[in-house]
Amino acid sequence: MLRFALFVTLISSAPAATPALMPLPVTVRPAAGKLTLDNSFKAAVVSAPDARLDEAIGRFVVRLSRQTGIPMPGLKEGAPKLRIECASAGSEYPTLGEDESYTLDVTSERALLNAPTRAGALHGLETFGQLVALGKDGFEVAAVHIEDKPRFPWRGLMLDSARHWMPLEVVRRNLDAMAAVKLNVFHWHLADDQGFRVESKRFPKLQGEGSDGLFYTQAEIRGVVAYARDRGIRVVPEFDIPGHTTAWMVGYPELGTNPGPYEIGRHWGIFENALDPSREETYAFLDAFFEEMTALFPDPYFHIGGDEVEAKQWNASARVQAWAKQNNLKDAHAIQAYFNQRVQKMLTKRGKTLIGWDEVLHPDLPRDIVVQSWRGQKSLAEAAAKGYRGILSWGYYVDHLSPAAFHYGVDPMSGDADRLGPEEKARILGGELCMWAEYTTSETVDSRIWPRGAAIAERLWSPAATVNVDSMYARMEAVSGVLEWTGVQHRANYGPMLERMTGGRPTEALRVLADAVEGLGLGPRARAGKYTSLTPMNRLADAARPESESVRAMELAAAKVAADPKGSPAEAALLRREFARWAANDARFRELAAGSPLLTELLPLSRDLSALGEAGLKLLDGLEKGQAPAAGFVAAQTKEVARMEKPAAELNLAATRPVKALLKGGK
Amino acid sequence: MLRFALFVTLISSAPAATPALMPLPVTVRPAAGKLTLDNSFKAAVVSAPDARLDEAIGRFVVRLSRQTGIPMPGLKEGAPKLRIECASAGSEYPTLGEDESYTLDVTSERALLNAPTRAGALHGLETFGQLVALGKDGFEVAAVHIEDKPRFPWRGLMLDSARHWMPLEVVRRNLDAMAAVKLNVFHWHLADDQGFRVESKRFPKLQGEGSDGLFYTQAEIRGVVAYARDRGIRVVPEFDIPGHTTAWMVGYPELGTNPGPYEIGRHWGIFENALDPSREETYAFLDAFFEEMTALFPDPYFHIGGDEVEAKQWNASARVQAWAKQNNLKDAHAIQAYFNQRVQKMLTKRGKTLIGWDEVLHPDLPRDIVVQSWRGQKSLAEAAAKGYRGILSWGYYVDHLSPAAFHYGVDPMSGDADRLGPEEKARILGGELCMWAEYTTSETVDSRIWPRGAAIAERLWSPAATVNVDSMYARMEAVSGVLEWTGVQHRANYGPMLERMTGGRPTEALRVLADAVEGLGLGPRARAGKYTSLTPMNRLADAARPESESVRAMELAAAKVAADPKGSPAEAALLRREFARWAANDARFRELAAGSPLLTELLPLSRDLSALGEAGLKLLDGLEKGQAPAAGFVAAQTKEVARMEKPAAELNLAATRPVKALLKGGK
Repeated sequence: MLRFALFVTLISSAPAATPALMPLPVTVRPAAGKLTLDNSFKAAVVSAPDARLDEAIGRFVVRLSRQTGIPMPGLKEGAPKLRIECASAGSEYPTLGEDESYTLDVTSERALLNAPTRAGALHGLETFGQLVALGKDGFEVAAVHIEDKPRFPWRGLMLDSARHWMPLEVVRRNLDAMAAVKLNVFHWHLADDQGFRVESKRFPKLQGEGSDGLFYTQAEIRGVVAYARDRGIRVVPEFDIPGHTTAWMVGYPELGTNPGPYEIGRHWGIFENALDPSREETYAFLDAFFEEMTALFPDPYFHIGGDEVEAKQWNASARVQAWAKQNNLKDAHAIQAYFNQRVQKMLTKRGKTLIGWDEVLHPDLPRDIVVQSWRGQKSLAEAAAKGYRGILSWGYYVDHLSPAAFHYGVDPMSGDADRLGPEEKARILGGELCMWAEYTTSETVDSRIWPRGAAIAERLWSPAATVNVDSMYARMEAVSGVLEWTGVQHRANYGPMLERMTGGRPTEALRVLADAVEGLGLGPRARAGKYTSLTPMNRLADAARPESESVRAMELAAAKVAADPKGSPAEAALLRREFARWAANDARFRELAAGSPLLTELLPLSRDLSALGEAGLKLLDGLEKGQAPAAGFVAAQTKEVARMEKPAAELNLAATRPVKALLKGGK
Repeated sequence: MLRFALFVTLISSAPAATPALMPLPVTVRPAAGKLTLDNSFKAAVVSAPDARLDEAIGRFVVRLSRQTGIPMPGLKEGAPKLRIECASAGSEYPTLGEDESYTLDVTSERALLNAPTRAGALHGLETFGQLVALGKDGFEVAAVHIEDKPRFPWRGLMLDSARHWMPLEVVRRNLDAMAAVKLNVFHWHLADDQGFRVESKRFPKLQGEGSDGLFYTQAEIRGVVAYARDRGIRVVPEFDIPGHTTAWMVGYPELGTNPGPYEIGRHWGIFENALDPSREETYAFLDAFFEEMTALFPDPYFHIGGDEVEAKQWNASARVQAWAKQNNLKDAHAIQAYFNQRVQKMLTKRGKTLIGWDEVLHPDLPRDIVVQSWRGQKSLAEAAAKGYRGILSWGYYVDHLSPAAFHYGVDPMSGDADRLGPEEKARILGGELCMWAEYTTSETVDSRIWPRGAAIAERLWSPAATVNVDSMYARMEAVSGVLEWTGVQHRANYGPMLERMTGGRPTEALRVLADAVEGLGLGPRARAGKYTSLTPMNRLADAARPESESVRAMELAAAKVAADPKGSPAEAALLRREFARWAANDARFRELAAGSPLLTELLPLSRDLSALGEAGLKLLDGLEKGQAPAAGFVAAQTKEVARMEKPAAELNLAATRPVKALLKGGK
């Protein structure tokens, strides 16, 4: 595979020689010349007319116009600069495994996009959009030949709309961003203990009592399904049963194993409530419910969750126990398998294939179900060996706020999966990044998915050998800018959140600190233990990014300066400027914090940041003079850095990393 | 009138003692105590049920929740903290002159909003929203008693959707922002030489040939009218005739005085094309057209433009001249008056009152028409003296990018208007800020309207004696933050536009420059003479704000330091920091500009900015040491500043102003 030439770095201010593509295509062959973009730009299908593709092209040109600031009204005169040949429109809805390949040829005169299906054509448009760069004469696309197709057919994003409500515009803008990085499955987690988010006309108390009024109407659902379809994205709904069902039981307590009454869940974690598997009425309810919901979601896959079912209520219920004995179900796992078999039949008769989390795997279930693994490649490989198809989600939980490099390193086909035979391997369909919403709101969700989601998208699309982490980061940060034009607010919401924390006063001193810290993910926040769905999410822990771009640039610079102090003047200058900024910041931050209760908890972090800035400057001085720092200084600073590495105010002080790199170099 | 205590300044970082209200209410009486906002917050109508008000309250609480980051799901338990008593829902649509008053009482326990109509209740909600501040224990509203009502009944925003297309979301978010500052008329300029923006089913070639496909469907129009109504805003459509009509004639050339063919206008300025007043078919067309459009817009006022009609084609047309002679119409003005009389009758029979620009004023037109004056208070007063009602727009053209203080100083009732008798004065209904769109796009339009539009809103709402400019600026800058939560993007689009100019590289060096310059308005840009609707609007001249907040803060600081060098340490520190930033910026900017053709034109400005920073530092040094600067230095710098005051790259270098203030002080 060709390694893509990349000259974009945060340190160098030289312009990008070639735009950064993500996911990286299978083949990229740069050529001589460039296609200039101006107000005469037009794109058109030159094969058989396809109204839906025409609309997609229309949207694409509008976005290109916004991205460049150039009006592109599609004037009548002149030939289209981007010509699209699409052999077949394909099916009404995107389907698993359809041909998504495309080729794109850009010369100085025109661009030609060729694809066997509309899905491929849509992907090719997105690639063209990422190729647009600011050259010395304006916006342009460098001449190139690209051949591309996905490695895995199932590349998903799971969004939890239950824990925190995600308004329609959040869904829509994330579908646009998904399309931009060639993700093709929107897995919609629509009900959980904390909320039932879909209108049921058959059982109106589901949303009526179980949602605080925050749910999607059926018309809105149909709108989202069409919106996704137009962008080449399948919509797989998830109704998690028999656990995670408290919100169902608020309106229909008779569904529960315990008599109730039930209230909408406000705290997080695994609830004990579960549907009653022993009553036929439960199955009758579900059958009628699926009748309604399978008609609403056209995709042939239907997700029933099935994770984290607590045995406690079933074990404690004399009725359930008597029934289980009668039916020879020896434990909760067997009960759940029985329950799943019943549900699976309801889905099958409506043409749907059941998909569920690891826990649904049971020998009694037919081989055509799909297993989504939060447990890992081992679990996935075991399922594949048994004949089940599967997708990986372990390692793709973006709500953990792990670095992009971690997610990027997780390959669905690695470990036990790598040892499978070819037929078994073919059962591993891909993966899904999971955006659970306990610790995110509609305001922060975009920044938890993007840009790191692009790195996962690359893992699922690009050839397995695409593993260079530095290249990934450089491209991810560039694509983060492109994503902004799709409408996701991973960058846009940062400033207003900081302003809220200062009560509208100038945020600069807060921003310096905010840029140097990173938010903590689900684990540590859950352990903080005080969260409910009513907890304000307006702290720096919420505004802060999962990964600091500016600190990463400093880390790279520090590594270079430590290795070659005299030979890295640009990097040294960058570090000096940033360290000086940190060193001077605490005085200003303290002044700002005096007026805001939302800033008080950050005072120790701010003090530490300034100390790191001072230490960094001292280390730089020594390195530049060729003097090793005093052993005592290094020891003391190393101890300080270790102390600072412990989270505070649910934040990591990322700023420790470049100083640590210099300390190591200075030893 | 009580002058509102205001402790918010850009220089002090002390928290706001009282939140900044804009428009300033008639009476504000602070009291002891505060109402705390937390997740139990609820608002409810306690008088007769009013579904539309309930919806408005629902939206208001959602916004409050976003503004504070506190979930406010409206839990069942607990009484509403904000109680609304509304005596009467009022009419189906907002009407001119209805009672818009309200009183608001906030104590430590609860808030009570009382209004005779829904319109007043909506205004009171917005005031409550502006009262929310971050106190030492969290978000709160300080106890207060407010009595409020508008000075003028017609407080409008005119948006030009013709010159540059304004998508629906631009309209919607600006309606929300209008409501936030109590503007109550959305005057929608829907057709001009460059585009016909409404779907006509009767004459589909109007939008079909005259809009490049960029128009509002009738369903969308109805949606906007309902959206505005729900926010207490009337929608007055404008179809500008008989000039400004090129776009009409692209599809219907027979409407024109000249035979055509016509093309959509691409350049700006006054076109010669005008409807043919001599053919009965023209009137038949308009009659059928108004039949359709008056049904679409329920407001009783209907705007027919009537401005800037060029006589040239009428004078050159033998047919028109013969017809005019026959009808005793001695010149173009008489022809237009005849035309307007015909149109006025078409509107009257459909229950509409004609409104037009100054030019429609003619003794032959009945006294019930309304004149919108772009010429000024003199013209308005003359109309009022003759018995016509009028609104002022001269002085409120926000596309001129004048300082807020200029607009704020324009009172519809000043000058000749002030010398009118009480009955005549009552004919002056208010004013409208005008957002013409030659030099703005959907991306920049919000920053051209806001926050300066809030200052105009205050002029039209608050008592005439509310004239303190410093208070206005301090409150406007605070309200600018509140406006952000309504969804307008006057701040949000700044960063992405700068990123586009750097090709995605870090924008800091550009931002330092961008913060120190101000965009030029219509006049100088029109004189640059090279603009059409196809010109990219992606330069700093487009991204730059009309007025620099940070430079204004520096000007205030410089005035204090110049007057009392020893007694203003905080101000001196602010200036020193900013001047140093400017001085150091050019080197970084030059590096950045090397990679971007969009930055090249800014190089001289950047050099000047650094020179100003250096001069500023030198002046500060002298002032602090109590040494007068050398006369030669002052003379040289004064000359340099004068040179820099000339615009470059269609930008003003606002940074000259604080240096000038120090130079004056240093003399």
